[in-house]
Amino acid sequence: MKQKISTQAISGFPEYLPDDQLALAKLKKTIEDVYRSFAFMPLDTPLLERREVLLSKAGGETEHQIYFLDKGEEQLALRFDLTVPLARYVSEYAKQITFPFKRYQIAKVYRGERPQRGRFREFYQADIDTVFEGVLPLSADAEIIKVIIKVFERLEVGPFTVKISNRKLLNGLLADLKLIDKGPEIMRILDRLPKVGASVVTEDLLALGVSEEAGKRILELTTIKDNVLENLEKLAINHPDFIIGLAELREVADCLADYGISSDSYAFDLSIARGLDYYTGTVFETFLNDHAELGSICSGGRYENLVSGFGDGSFPGVGASIGLSRLYYQLKESQLLADNSDAVADALVISSSRSQGEALADKLRARGLRVAGSYGPEKLKKKMALANKWRVKEVYFLEEQELAKEEVAIKDMISGEQKNYPLKDFAL
Amino acid sequence: MKQKISTQAISGFPEYLPDDQLALAKLKKTIEDVYRSFAFMPLDTPLLERREVLLSKAGGETEHQIYFLDKGEEQLALRFDLTVPLARYVSEYAKQITFPFKRYQIAKVYRGERPQRGRFREFYQADIDTVFEGVLPLSADAEIIKVIIKVFERLEVGPFTVKISNRKLLNGLLADLKLIDKGPEIMRILDRLPKVGASVVTEDLLALGVSEEAGKRILELTTIKDNVLENLEKLAINHPDFIIGLAELREVADCLADYGISSDSYAFDLSIARGLDYYTGTVFETFLNDHAELGSICSGGRYENLVSGFGDGSFPGVGASIGLSRLYYQLKESQLLADNSDAVADALVISSSRSQGEALADKLRARGLRVAGSYGPEKLKKKMALANKWRVKEVYFLEEQELAKEEVAIKDMISGEQKNYPLKDFAL
Repeated sequence: MKQKISTQAISGFPEYLPDDQLALAKLKKTIEDVYRSFAFMPLDTPLLERREVLLSKAGGETEHQIYFLDKGEEQLALRFDLTVPLARYVSEYAKQITFPFKRYQIAKVYRGERPQRGRFREFYQADIDTVFEGVLPLSADAEIIKVIIKVFERLEVGPFTVKISNRKLLNGLLADLKLIDKGPEIMRILDRLPKVGASVVTEDLLALGVSEEAGKRILELTTIKDNVLENLEKLAINHPDFIIGLAELREVADCLADYGISSDSYAFDLSIARGLDYYTGTVFETFLNDHAELGSICSGGRYENLVSGFGDGSFPGVGASIGLSRLYYQLKESQLLADNSDAVADALVISSSRSQGEALADKLRARGLRVAGSYGPEKLKKKMALANKWRVKEVYFLEEQELAKEEVAIKDMISGEQKNYPLKDFAL
Repeated sequence: MKQKISTQAISGFPEYLPDDQLALAKLKKTIEDVYRSFAFMPLDTPLLERREVLLSKAGGETEHQIYFLDKGEEQLALRFDLTVPLARYVSEYAKQITFPFKRYQIAKVYRGERPQRGRFREFYQADIDTVFEGVLPLSADAEIIKVIIKVFERLEVGPFTVKISNRKLLNGLLADLKLIDKGPEIMRILDRLPKVGASVVTEDLLALGVSEEAGKRILELTTIKDNVLENLEKLAINHPDFIIGLAELREVADCLADYGISSDSYAFDLSIARGLDYYTGTVFETFLNDHAELGSICSGGRYENLVSGFGDGSFPGVGASIGLSRLYYQLKESQLLADNSDAVADALVISSSRSQGEALADKLRARGLRVAGSYGPEKLKKKMALANKWRVKEVYFLEEQELAKEEVAIKDMISGEQKNYPLKDFAL
């Protein structure tokens, strides 16, 4: 007896039913449309990278999460993000690329971590980056933030805030306090601030050997919420990193204002310097105001040199990444995607005449509509059930009675209203 | 000393420069737009499948071309086509899917074959299938053929012909001649007909033990070029398979005529029954009239039961597949893609005022344009060079002189003409 082959989805590899397929495709398209509207170009790189390319950039846990392949002379592996392929691409083709190189990539990445709710082994990332050769102006940072704000406005996820900081500010203070070597540990402690509160953080800093006075100054910096730029100025920290960081933050603020971005959409917040070793200046994270529990739904920032480790030359960049599969999962779980699913078709043409029905369908398609035709002998009830399942907006009837009068009856599937129109109105 | 990491593309894994990236993205989008205009829905499945799922469907060479992964409890591998994932998906979710299930998938597949010109290890396929539960009408076959014709019309690849056959015709004749057990060998011999000619084929058939008379009848069937339906009728082959096959071919012909498809775009041709073991009725291949040497650029057909081997129930289907990466390679090699590359941006706004320039850019974006802004101190020459490299169609100047007159100067980058317009015309 033949053993049954399992056709179930593989754990950690999300697979969606048709309605979710349509909703996710729409989500991807919305993000892509916004990215493209700002003249970012699509970049597609192979899913497989050389083992050494990935290992050279995979820090800590990531290294153990790489999927390697067992075939061929070359040792290949599945990419774990879209930044390493971008870095390799820019390094390899720097002479053939026009800078600023503004690219987006919406594609799958792989991390063999233990699957858990909302964590996947295969997932989409929607990345956007501006890479330059030479000095990249800070307006590029503001542009990336603007694009991300436009994406979340278009996705209609409710009120959100892009929290913006600059790594040089905390670094400047730590240097001033002679604590720069304790930087990573301090950041890890600060990272827990929203969860554990200021007193626990103070104790932890003391335990690390940070003086009470220094701990106070660090907390003071990272907990400013109002009039951030003015209050940062008042701290009168004179380390050059701090001064440059503040100037950069101010320039990003000016640029966002010039770019017509309402200050409702973003806030300066120095508590978000966390975790992002990679970044060197501007950093930001994005939160839904009413769903802070979801964590950041889009993070990004500026890096000094994208290709470091791969090649010569200096290619500064700024970018952002949306964890699309996770975002979709979260929006769905939190019922923030109420009825965001797309229709399979805009219109269904039901006709007893295959040729006249399809001629009408073709005319509607030429107008940009997605149109299905139904010219078979099935019962009307069955055809209307299909129209409903496909979320069709309009049904066009071209049956004997309409054809006799050279009319077409159009039923609006949302209001339920039906009205006749002269067929000649639909001539091309 | 640190060893240099290779950033080169991996052999067999195509990687494109920006212009090709844009052209390929446009090609994909055109195909997707046509697929969607006929109300086919997007399907996205994981790139990895269980080892046993792939092995159960991989015949012959394909089995040795599968990329297996070395991680985790489950044995996973990269898909080698998009049909196996579709079969698994339909089998697993049959109860939750609405039939007809009309889906497309434009995605990468993997075959670890020796790379050669125009043959890739990672490549895109653009598949379209209609799957039914029960009896699938032949109009579905005609619809798939129509969609493929519309795709190649939209791609402007020059004149092409979809060659259509039905496997039941040759099978009927072979059954009539008591040669059905030699079917696969006979097809392999016939496959070489265009290359080696009729006399070699006749000899090969004789050598296989096919009588001269039988060989003549087989060649007679497979070389009819004109009035194919009438001439097939005249052959007076009475095997039921042949009679059914002819009726099916006739129905597809009637339906294509009803669907408004010019007979310039397709031809009935019984020589193409080859190779496609998989298919059981309608089969077709697509050739460029002036570039027959490229071989078929899109093949497809009807299969009795998609899920056979995976599950219960009968799910007949009909579909087609475009080997996109190969097609792009061929079109480019044959210079049939003259200037099909897309622009990075439709417009570039050059302004000395970041706020006014970006306000104009946002208005153009709201009209659906892809717009880049350039508000920095770089020289005009440098900005115009960027506009050219990005293939921008229009440059909007909003410099001091235009701002003073509340005008905008628009330069048409194709004609070179430049004209001033009142800025208020661009109010939203």
